[in-house]
Amino acid sequence: MYSGGYTGKVLRINLTHKTTRAEPLPEELARNFIGGAGFGIKYLFDEVKPGTDPLGSDNILVFAAGPFTGAGIPCASRMSVTAKSPLTGAVGVALSGGEFPTELKFAGWDVIIVEGKADKPTYVSILGQDVKFHDARHTWGTLTFDCQQLVKNELRDQNVRVCCIGPAGEHLSKMACLVNERRAVGRKGLGAVMGSKNLKALAVRGTDTVAIDSAQKYKVGRSELLQAFKASPVLYPEFSHHGTPMVTDLAGALGVLPAKNWTATGAFVPVEGIGRDAQATRIVGREHCHDCPVGCSQLKVAQTGEYAGILTEGPDFETVYSLGSGVGVDRVDPIIAADRLCDELGLDTISAGVTISFAMELYEKGLFTRADTDGIDLRFGNDQAMLQVLRKIAYRDGVGDLLADGSRAAAKRIGEGTEKYAMHVKGLELPGYDVRALKGHGLGFATAYTGADHCRGYAFQEVFGVPVPWHVDRLSTDGKGKLTIWNQDVRTATLDCAPMCAFLLDMAVPATACQNTATLMEAVTGLSFTPEQVLQVGERVNNLAKAFNVREGLTRADDTLPERLLTEPLPAGASKGNVLSRADLNKMLDEYYALRGWDVRTGVPTRQKLTDLGLAYVADQLGV
Amino acid sequence: MYSGGYTGKVLRINLTHKTTRAEPLPEELARNFIGGAGFGIKYLFDEVKPGTDPLGSDNILVFAAGPFTGAGIPCASRMSVTAKSPLTGAVGVALSGGEFPTELKFAGWDVIIVEGKADKPTYVSILGQDVKFHDARHTWGTLTFDCQQLVKNELRDQNVRVCCIGPAGEHLSKMACLVNERRAVGRKGLGAVMGSKNLKALAVRGTDTVAIDSAQKYKVGRSELLQAFKASPVLYPEFSHHGTPMVTDLAGALGVLPAKNWTATGAFVPVEGIGRDAQATRIVGREHCHDCPVGCSQLKVAQTGEYAGILTEGPDFETVYSLGSGVGVDRVDPIIAADRLCDELGLDTISAGVTISFAMELYEKGLFTRADTDGIDLRFGNDQAMLQVLRKIAYRDGVGDLLADGSRAAAKRIGEGTEKYAMHVKGLELPGYDVRALKGHGLGFATAYTGADHCRGYAFQEVFGVPVPWHVDRLSTDGKGKLTIWNQDVRTATLDCAPMCAFLLDMAVPATACQNTATLMEAVTGLSFTPEQVLQVGERVNNLAKAFNVREGLTRADDTLPERLLTEPLPAGASKGNVLSRADLNKMLDEYYALRGWDVRTGVPTRQKLTDLGLAYVADQLGV
Repeated sequence: MYSGGYTGKVLRINLTHKTTRAEPLPEELARNFIGGAGFGIKYLFDEVKPGTDPLGSDNILVFAAGPFTGAGIPCASRMSVTAKSPLTGAVGVALSGGEFPTELKFAGWDVIIVEGKADKPTYVSILGQDVKFHDARHTWGTLTFDCQQLVKNELRDQNVRVCCIGPAGEHLSKMACLVNERRAVGRKGLGAVMGSKNLKALAVRGTDTVAIDSAQKYKVGRSELLQAFKASPVLYPEFSHHGTPMVTDLAGALGVLPAKNWTATGAFVPVEGIGRDAQATRIVGREHCHDCPVGCSQLKVAQTGEYAGILTEGPDFETVYSLGSGVGVDRVDPIIAADRLCDELGLDTISAGVTISFAMELYEKGLFTRADTDGIDLRFGNDQAMLQVLRKIAYRDGVGDLLADGSRAAAKRIGEGTEKYAMHVKGLELPGYDVRALKGHGLGFATAYTGADHCRGYAFQEVFGVPVPWHVDRLSTDGKGKLTIWNQDVRTATLDCAPMCAFLLDMAVPATACQNTATLMEAVTGLSFTPEQVLQVGERVNNLAKAFNVREGLTRADDTLPERLLTEPLPAGASKGNVLSRADLNKMLDEYYALRGWDVRTGVPTRQKLTDLGLAYVADQLGV
Repeated sequence: MYSGGYTGKVLRINLTHKTTRAEPLPEELARNFIGGAGFGIKYLFDEVKPGTDPLGSDNILVFAAGPFTGAGIPCASRMSVTAKSPLTGAVGVALSGGEFPTELKFAGWDVIIVEGKADKPTYVSILGQDVKFHDARHTWGTLTFDCQQLVKNELRDQNVRVCCIGPAGEHLSKMACLVNERRAVGRKGLGAVMGSKNLKALAVRGTDTVAIDSAQKYKVGRSELLQAFKASPVLYPEFSHHGTPMVTDLAGALGVLPAKNWTATGAFVPVEGIGRDAQATRIVGREHCHDCPVGCSQLKVAQTGEYAGILTEGPDFETVYSLGSGVGVDRVDPIIAADRLCDELGLDTISAGVTISFAMELYEKGLFTRADTDGIDLRFGNDQAMLQVLRKIAYRDGVGDLLADGSRAAAKRIGEGTEKYAMHVKGLELPGYDVRALKGHGLGFATAYTGADHCRGYAFQEVFGVPVPWHVDRLSTDGKGKLTIWNQDVRTATLDCAPMCAFLLDMAVPATACQNTATLMEAVTGLSFTPEQVLQVGERVNNLAKAFNVREGLTRADDTLPERLLTEPLPAGASKGNVLSRADLNKMLDEYYALRGWDVRTGVPTRQKLTDLGLAYVADQLGV
């Protein structure tokens, strides 16, 4: 049995019946799924029946920390939130750092499972073992930062940590996120799930500590990690100063920074106007997640015109893309303003930005007129229009209602062949890497169980040129099946399940992440792990998540990319002329399925594979 | 010597030399000035030489709590901030509640005196006896709520309390205020004084308790106060639910709610659109100052259109006037939005609103064109224009620069006989009571040492009809000299010096405030006081403040009212036709000066009076 790391307790909150129950965390769960998204997906598969309405009371919302969270391991103040996604209908997983995850552990819980639906707006306080339901009708309608403050004041404790939704979640926008402090649990519309349950916020506070099994091994494992941090040529010298926006210039140089709804990748110049150094001129400080020595999170204040004085944490690279180049906005300050607005509204910046860029393309093509946009001049580069529409989306006002459920749903409603302009996979809008010149990324976006997701198997090898586990050619499709599986499994095990910060892997321990995790698992929890066993947890979770999607009816046809990327060559820049054809994709998919041990024709996991992973019961359910 | 209440320590912070010094709090100061504004004005008179530039390094900024602050006395979590006002050139005093004042006492300090000017943006942390200067260049430009959060995060303590300035203070707008939590230390441009010193914020945190001299007497005195609270027909049943906006309807009914820069008092209908019940539809919660059982501070969230989701604490009645009826805005939500914006910018709502209404009148009269307003359609009732100009004021952008120093300065710059549209006394913009039908208020605004100030002698008898200390006729000038002196001295002693909350006096203990204060002074501090001695402290402070102004060159001619109020009858409503003529004002002034024991011709305190009050040294300085 584990003797450290885990609190050993799962809190089940039923909003329908206003009941709470503490359950033990089974050792088998810990051993086979480690924590975080592993736990979330296991509960989701086991408890949410096929065909469940994501916004109905039968969906569940699972908050899960991991064994390292709160244990003093750097970069491990992370948690996953898991539900069936209303945006994709598939597994919805998103992660977040900050202080909330650690506080959850200090309160004595590894996992919180939220079930049912409250009859009126509610928030739940979890002060250690003291769990209470609070009427939240008065907080309904508040922006996320105000809401957090209100809850802290009501609980008379400024050290309570609050994770909440904003107006976007209340109005069930399928692009709504959760926000704790200034951090989003973004993507996949998990904020709408929370909103559909009438749950405005969770508030946690605790005073427990996290036990460590072996102080001696812990010291060694932690020290190895910190040494790797110091040895990284990027992590402290560059990343802790600039955070993810440092990627902007690189993406520009490679010609893979998407612009104007992916019609102008490579043609958005100068990238420098929104890139690393332009962002740096706005930095006023940084924030560290609990126990993080890096502090990649930049606080920035806009300086010009009507945006002067607006502060945000971020914008991260993805937001620089989605609310910058993607919508044709070429200045830093409106991006800062839009990022802040999204955080306050509780709106995922990527999906919201890409959905607006979709509408902008329609507008420029004449498929959308001012009559459709409530009179807004929705051309690319109109930052004020972007801000107006972001608000409208969160409140489902006019054109905002049309766009509130993401680009796929909007295209369906608009019709007239607009689906081809909707840049999504499985309903999830694309992150900021043009896969026509990053082909492993293409396969990753096509196969990730959450849809087009930069956090579910990011091919850092293609972007940074890191030859781990081997050298790759970003323009080639060769070996990308194998690469994607490695990326998905390593990242799932170490970043989603442990869970630890993605940047740790990209910049500090790319080759040894499973070894580090195994060492720390043994040190912290007392459960022995080999690196291979850690990697297998990643494989297990990817298989289980895939099985969930298969059970929901998703097929090989859903493992695809937007038509534009399969047919139109990159228009300009360093990667001009590249394309990722349907044949390319099919070739990569075949390799991927075969190496996964899945049926190549259907993309469905085989009984053999599932049984090897201890998931025979899943094979039964899939009827394979 | 006092043995409770006071910490006995004054912290002197010199920003020029980056030095700090702890000084004892003399018993004589406590006995003669009690605390709060009494202390502030004494330090100001003694340490700031005549002719000092209010925005120069020789001005001082005095933060002073009182003996009851943090001692568990209800409604006493108050502090005053005092400096020479850049807006008026006279004594600048403003008070605020919340948690900061109590925290200051818990940190071990009665008073903080800030001197000099930092060479670069700075904030100062006062964690008990540990006082540190911090580089604040990175926080320069931040909005007040963001700034507070940044400082808390940097000090790694969410329970630190922060009082700071926003962009308005940084840009030296003479209408800038200080903000702690959601509360303003408003009026008189004290935020500009802080900005001129390059002081972005003070952060305090303490763990001391406040000693009580006699537990037995304390129990009795506190209980008397709480009994009076319960006995009030207004305090709990009405005021704790609606706060100051309940006054809106009453002012409307009396025909004294000023509208459209005082051109339309009585003609602004329906008042209900912005009044008590309209406000109540937006309430989502309330905030209590430390140890306050009333909680008059309403949290409201706007619901409509582009304002939906915006939360503010308030707006208080004065803001409902200044950013509502005063500028012709007849809906609640834009007032909420403007209130929030002012809090974030660190801008006094009254002065800013009245200055904008002044500009609106010029615009409507054709004295101001779109060329003057940066193209903004600055007509009465244009809420978007109001919001735009508020921002411009804080950043001194275009027309905002013209208006940033208040209506008097703006009129001076614009010229062309515009001074008569500037609704101020001594440079301080008028609060929301039309004195043409509240004549005691007129005398109060004319004689208050800070300029037109509803907090320096508010004639609640005229508004609420409370016959304390005697019945008055609001339309008559008879006896208003005596009434004003009583109001000024009682309020100064109990509300400004103790300091305690104004609403306590208006609604709970109007007749016994000095008695209550005397009882509590003895119980808490061990210093014996009679009610008459308490009242005399009020008289002493009013004389000393007046002497400061005289020393700065102010004369009887400055104790006046805007020309409009002296010449134009009230245009409409229940008080239609009333006027407060120059003769009326002079009659009241004569009575006032005579009863004050001041020279009736000049309005200057006599040597006799000053000597009686123990202020012979002041008479020496004035040469009387």
